[in-house]
Amino acid sequence: MSQPDKELFNLAMSEQAQPLFHAVKKHIEENVDTIVEEYFALDKDKEDRWTFHPRQTELLEGAKQKAREAGLWNFFLPDSELGDGLTNLDYAYIAAELGKNPLASQSLNCSAPDTGNMEVLERVGTEAQKEQWLKPLLAGEIRSAYAMTEPDHASSDATNIQTSAVLDGDEWVINGEKYYISGAGDPRCTILITMVKSSPDAETYRQQSMILIPKDTPGVEILGAMEVFGEDHAPHGHMHIKFDNVRVPKDNVLWGEGRGFEISQLRLGPGRIHHCMRSIGQAEKALDLMVKRASTRVAFGKPIVKLGKNLEIVARARIEIDACRLMVLQAAKAMDVLGNKEARVYVSAVKAMVPEKVCTIIDQAIQMHGATGMSQWTPLAAMYANQRHLRFADGPDEVHHMVVGRNEVRKHGLW
Amino acid sequence: MSQPDKELFNLAMSEQAQPLFHAVKKHIEENVDTIVEEYFALDKDKEDRWTFHPRQTELLEGAKQKAREAGLWNFFLPDSELGDGLTNLDYAYIAAELGKNPLASQSLNCSAPDTGNMEVLERVGTEAQKEQWLKPLLAGEIRSAYAMTEPDHASSDATNIQTSAVLDGDEWVINGEKYYISGAGDPRCTILITMVKSSPDAETYRQQSMILIPKDTPGVEILGAMEVFGEDHAPHGHMHIKFDNVRVPKDNVLWGEGRGFEISQLRLGPGRIHHCMRSIGQAEKALDLMVKRASTRVAFGKPIVKLGKNLEIVARARIEIDACRLMVLQAAKAMDVLGNKEARVYVSAVKAMVPEKVCTIIDQAIQMHGATGMSQWTPLAAMYANQRHLRFADGPDEVHHMVVGRNEVRKHGLW
Amino acid sequence: MSQPDKELFNLAMSEQAQPLFHAVKKHIEENVDTIVEEYFALDKDKEDRWTFHPRQTELLEGAKQKAREAGLWNFFLPDSELGDGLTNLDYAYIAAELGKNPLASQSLNCSAPDTGNMEVLERVGTEAQKEQWLKPLLAGEIRSAYAMTEPDHASSDATNIQTSAVLDGDEWVINGEKYYISGAGDPRCTILITMVKSSPDAETYRQQSMILIPKDTPGVEILGAMEVFGEDHAPHGHMHIKFDNVRVPKDNVLWGEGRGFEISQLRLGPGRIHHCMRSIGQAEKALDLMVKRASTRVAFGKPIVKLGKNLEIVARARIEIDACRLMVLQAAKAMDVLGNKEARVYVSAVKAMVPEKVCTIIDQAIQMHGATGMSQWTPLAAMYANQRHLRFADGPDEVHHMVVGRNEVRKHGLW
Amino acid sequence: MSQPDKELFNLAMSEQAQPLFHAVKKHIEENVDTIVEEYFALDKDKEDRWTFHPRQTELLEGAKQKAREAGLWNFFLPDSELGDGLTNLDYAYIAAELGKNPLASQSLNCSAPDTGNMEVLERVGTEAQKEQWLKPLLAGEIRSAYAMTEPDHASSDATNIQTSAVLDGDEWVINGEKYYISGAGDPRCTILITMVKSSPDAETYRQQSMILIPKDTPGVEILGAMEVFGEDHAPHGHMHIKFDNVRVPKDNVLWGEGRGFEISQLRLGPGRIHHCMRSIGQAEKALDLMVKRASTRVAFGKPIVKLGKNLEIVARARIEIDACRLMVLQAAKAMDVLGNKEARVYVSAVKAMVPEKVCTIIDQAIQMHGATGMSQWTPLAAMYANQRHLRFADGPDEVHHMVVGRNEVRKHGLW
Repeated sequence: MSQPDKELFNLAMSEQAQPLFHAVKKHIEENVDTIVEEYFALDKDKEDRWTFHPRQTELLEGAKQKAREAGLWNFFLPDSELGDGLTNLDYAYIAAELGKNPLASQSLNCSAPDTGNMEVLERVGTEAQKEQWLKPLLAGEIRSAYAMTEPDHASSDATNIQTSAVLDGDEWVINGEKYYISGAGDPRCTILITMVKSSPDAETYRQQSMILIPKDTPGVEILGAMEVFGEDHAPHGHMHIKFDNVRVPKDNVLWGEGRGFEISQLRLGPGRIHHCMRSIGQAEKALDLMVKRASTRVAFGKPIVKLGKNLEIVARARIEIDACRLMVLQAAKAMDVLGNKEARVYVSAVKAMVPEKVCTIIDQAIQMHGATGMSQWTPLAAMYANQRHLRFADGPDEVHHMVVGRNEVRKHGLW
Repeated sequence: MSQPDKELFNLAMSEQAQPLFHAVKKHIEENVDTIVEEYFALDKDKEDRWTFHPRQTELLEGAKQKAREAGLWNFFLPDSELGDGLTNLDYAYIAAELGKNPLASQSLNCSAPDTGNMEVLERVGTEAQKEQWLKPLLAGEIRSAYAMTEPDHASSDATNIQTSAVLDGDEWVINGEKYYISGAGDPRCTILITMVKSSPDAETYRQQSMILIPKDTPGVEILGAMEVFGEDHAPHGHMHIKFDNVRVPKDNVLWGEGRGFEISQLRLGPGRIHHCMRSIGQAEKALDLMVKRASTRVAFGKPIVKLGKNLEIVARARIEIDACRLMVLQAAKAMDVLGNKEARVYVSAVKAMVPEKVCTIIDQAIQMHGATGMSQWTPLAAMYANQRHLRFADGPDEVHHMVVGRNEVRKHGLW
Repeated sequence: MSQPDKELFNLAMSEQAQPLFHAVKKHIEENVDTIVEEYFALDKDKEDRWTFHPRQTELLEGAKQKAREAGLWNFFLPDSELGDGLTNLDYAYIAAELGKNPLASQSLNCSAPDTGNMEVLERVGTEAQKEQWLKPLLAGEIRSAYAMTEPDHASSDATNIQTSAVLDGDEWVINGEKYYISGAGDPRCTILITMVKSSPDAETYRQQSMILIPKDTPGVEILGAMEVFGEDHAPHGHMHIKFDNVRVPKDNVLWGEGRGFEISQLRLGPGRIHHCMRSIGQAEKALDLMVKRASTRVAFGKPIVKLGKNLEIVARARIEIDACRLMVLQAAKAMDVLGNKEARVYVSAVKAMVPEKVCTIIDQAIQMHGATGMSQWTPLAAMYANQRHLRFADGPDEVHHMVVGRNEVRKHGLW
Repeated sequence: MSQPDKELFNLAMSEQAQPLFHAVKKHIEENVDTIVEEYFALDKDKEDRWTFHPRQTELLEGAKQKAREAGLWNFFLPDSELGDGLTNLDYAYIAAELGKNPLASQSLNCSAPDTGNMEVLERVGTEAQKEQWLKPLLAGEIRSAYAMTEPDHASSDATNIQTSAVLDGDEWVINGEKYYISGAGDPRCTILITMVKSSPDAETYRQQSMILIPKDTPGVEILGAMEVFGEDHAPHGHMHIKFDNVRVPKDNVLWGEGRGFEISQLRLGPGRIHHCMRSIGQAEKALDLMVKRASTRVAFGKPIVKLGKNLEIVARARIEIDACRLMVLQAAKAMDVLGNKEARVYVSAVKAMVPEKVCTIIDQAIQMHGATGMSQWTPLAAMYANQRHLRFADGPDEVHHMVVGRNEVRKHGLW
């Protein structure tokens, strides 16, 4: 066993990260768990679902301020001078905690898709781009979106991207349609990192570029909100956007023309793994709710956990969660040890494994609640929709299974 | 093989039902498929989600009128002078067609929960009760709800019912809470058939009664709408209702005090099976959408049905649907041949089998659509929620598996 | 619904078949169940495992004689003057009974692979071929094998057949290897119906022929017995056979050169479905054993059927068996109504569905028996191996799913 | 996160164990892989299946001698002066290698059930017991068996043990039946560690004792060999043993009367986990065979890994194996950090998880081989039987799920 191989099995949190981990847990407990109920109850008092209630803003900004003061800010950036220098592994432990509370990530400026976007800007942005977009993002003043998926083409195949960008003098002229652009509904979202086909004559993986498009640029039309199992997640939203002769300066391209695919690879690693880390938190929460319900609800004279297969379902959920957690930690460690590119197969493995299994666990938690499980009286239905959505986000399960399968076959010389 | 056993395997539609079956298909094609799009688009133009748009009423009543004129009305009533005398088996074929279009059942006055409620009234109602409630229901003028499930008690165990009815002179005084009362949100719904505990000192299965409670009786408070995976299905609704000292005449009890459990058994047979019949239609529709998408969507240079496991998923869906259909038909036949009570195990078998398998098929259709599958651009997410809901309605899967399992064990002398 | 479609749902046994069905059940009960224990106990007293003990022969021939006397003989032949004119549907009911006792089929001259082979000979054999081989087969005097599968080529693709037959004057000269030739170990087996590549220059599906090869022809070498999960099923056996310059008369070809594929299609229909019919009997037996064990074995103070998920497993087994039975009956009916060729998709559906599900049920019966379940003290391990084997016999599940899937896609115009 | 919790996630092999790990791999490659084929081919040349061929003994003892010379001997003993002081974690890495070759464990004196038995003797044996039994076991001169399971009582409930031991003067008189006593068929096996009910009047978990019974004691009758899916694993064997008035000295009790249950708990920890460690090796081997076959076997013009769901099966197998490995490593670490007793839930989790998943993977490898997969031409069928057997050994899956489930529920205060 080589040294790097050996390191891949040390999945313990580092000594340095422990104080941060505990501080984050304390912050969530004291500053976020305490506002969640009031925050979401205010949704009903808003006139426009696509805005925030002033009191919501007040609550959230209050929590953010407390996080900033406690130094709990932007720590998601790995190996960076800007962040806390957290490894992916250490971040994985923290992200699992974030997954248990729907406002926790935001309160710490660690929300998707901003984390991935900030990481991209930090790595490949020019000084000017950083000044204009990264700085306010790091400050938690604006939000961002990542415009990749298109309605008319299988997003599982990145070379299918059809939104075009054509240079016209000093400007890119962009035309096309994107959908499921998460976060683009948020009034604070001001910038869209957009994948375009800029160079149709280049080789297959050099035809794409990433371009920074301010959301208020003329020609950027929000056609509507895509739903996820009946939910539109306003005001965050998963927006359907049309680019109609949108013009942005030539310098808005990231890292240079033709490097879009490269950036997408770089970005998807941490992005995918952050999702899966939070999924562990979601699964823990589902199991927690499942056990609480099953231990207290009585039917046929017994707590229902003593009826039929329920106890075995609890046991299998615990086992699968623990297995998923270890796999996520190892994929994070692989990114630390091998780099994002070499860790690609590890990341695909957890991306294919975790949301599918977590969906099953949440579904079983729903079943154990009876009809209440699918109602608004528990967070389970929303959690299910969220995890089900992850089975498409950043590539459907099928594509990630393909990556893992091919890698296995390659060891034997085929492919 | 005894003669009844043998009959249980003749699952062909009767000669007499064939013209009706074809007339219903023609009606749906000509009068319902043609209005669906406009009907649901109008949902956005309503000021109050819990009402109908005048044009919606016009469209639906038009379709109902055409059905009445064609004699396609109330045919769901088995062996009845009022209906067409359709057997459950024949109705099963028709119901599968109804499952493919969300307005079809209503256009033919064959909607849940009215069909089950009308059957109950027709079988055990007094002449006065029939005059007051059955007549307008049969005419399609009013709608009804069936108030069984309670939020604080496991509904899988009917003896858990806690809503109380106490005789005070010539009146029942009713107190308690019900939830997931489907259809009670509809402004046309005027009557609630309500399961209550009326006789706490009687033996276990004689403590319950069914009482007719007009929705506008003082003390009937609609507390809100329960959601099903984020959808409230307004204006139909799955309502949360409080009965606060609700008073109705003594004569509003159905079939006599203490017969509530008996009625619920009688009602649940056809009710459960009608759901499952429609589920077959839903599954066929999901498979149809799945195959269409998979045959036309291209990724990696091929229609996606040629990629990975997709073709096998199509095959397995076809096989499971055909198996479910045969099981539903046999359960319907069992009700015809053996009677609702003796057919109880057949009915539980399909109730436990069909919605679970149909959920899986719809979920796979969703996956094959990519993110679009969970969006409002296909009916799949709503269909999933609907079928998922059925895994609780009329008793969760677990209870039906228990019925089937015990019956099997009894053959060997245990239980 | 067209008339043939409608007929596909009448799955009741015919009036005419009922007396036969009951006579077969009585025969098994009186003449076969009574000898099984002694018969198999004698296996230990044989010097050569690949022979029969004289007492075994005596027992079996006795049962056969009783069947002959009762007129229960060769009734498997559908629509034939030689048999009882049983439809495939009627035969399906009987075959399910045969599946419950390992000697029942043989006692009635209804064993695989003879039934399929006899049907082929009866349909496409010349008078001389019938005289020489069909007659003694119908009389139960000899047995036969069907030599299709080859070790070095994927048998799922019939065009892969490499065993060659070359005409040399009036003789075919055959070279190649076959394996898993079931029944070829039986000392009574005298004839091998062998699939060969005779015409490599013809179009793809006209290159194969079926040739009758007497087992004692020089050059037919039995290399050994293939095992099925550690069992060789001596003396029946699944033999590995080498054909080394085997010479047979030109007239030994069946139905003419180049019709091998055609015959295989014709044969596989009933052959496949007979397996699945018997699988229903196997599943019923497994469920019976499962419930008996679970009702009587006590752990933690209760019969184990009351522990954990066991009762639900019983319920799910019952439901799946009933669904499989209906599907098998419908496929049999499809062969009756539509003909073997048109019924191909129905047959593939049950071939893909039934053995897989029956494997699962037997496996669960094993689990419910504890370690005894995998021992020689119950028939379950052998039954499992038998059903697992069926997932390869006559094409692996994957090929049958492909047939069903493509048929579905074709309805939408692709493929 | 407390320090012990943190340690539970450092699953890397220790520095000290690395040379041993590599030496073991080299030993297997050079001294064991090289003799396997000849060794097992000799099985056919033995007159008595329940003996060893002299050449088999020569080959195996040769490999053992080389292991001894290289200092690779008895290293399985954790934290012991006798062994190498390997932690359970380090041993887990080595055991996974042992799982890939059926002679590897024995060549290193690390076979089940001897390892567990030696550990018990080392921990709780008297000096005399150690001298008589542990010494020759450590020297690899004799072998041992562990007689726990009884045919007539659910072994999942240890309090069910019915084999009785009654003190008569200075002797225990033992009567009863045990079955599936693995290794008791081996002519080298001379000692049976036997669980008996010695003290029926004590409290429930103090009624059992462990008694050392030499195999050649009068009254020890080997009734026969239990089969595992048709295999008897001669000469190792899973024996059915009757104790008929067997008399052994009073001092043959281990650790004192009434401590049988305690010893069984102590023993089962490492025993269970060693099985699961080897299962990882078995799964890796199955995946290896699966991928090799799928990459080279051609059907329909392609390597079959490119057909249908096969590539996804490969991917899912890889993912599940990696997850199982991490879980096994963590359970081993838990035993190191928390002690066997506290680690009980971790051990039950992997015991319930690993064999079931590995069975599935082997079954899929079988399916991908076509009929060859279930034949004696691949080791897969035997591997399947072996893993299927593990789902009963040391308690069926159901009991381990119960342990895990209850632990989860206890966190919420129930049970």
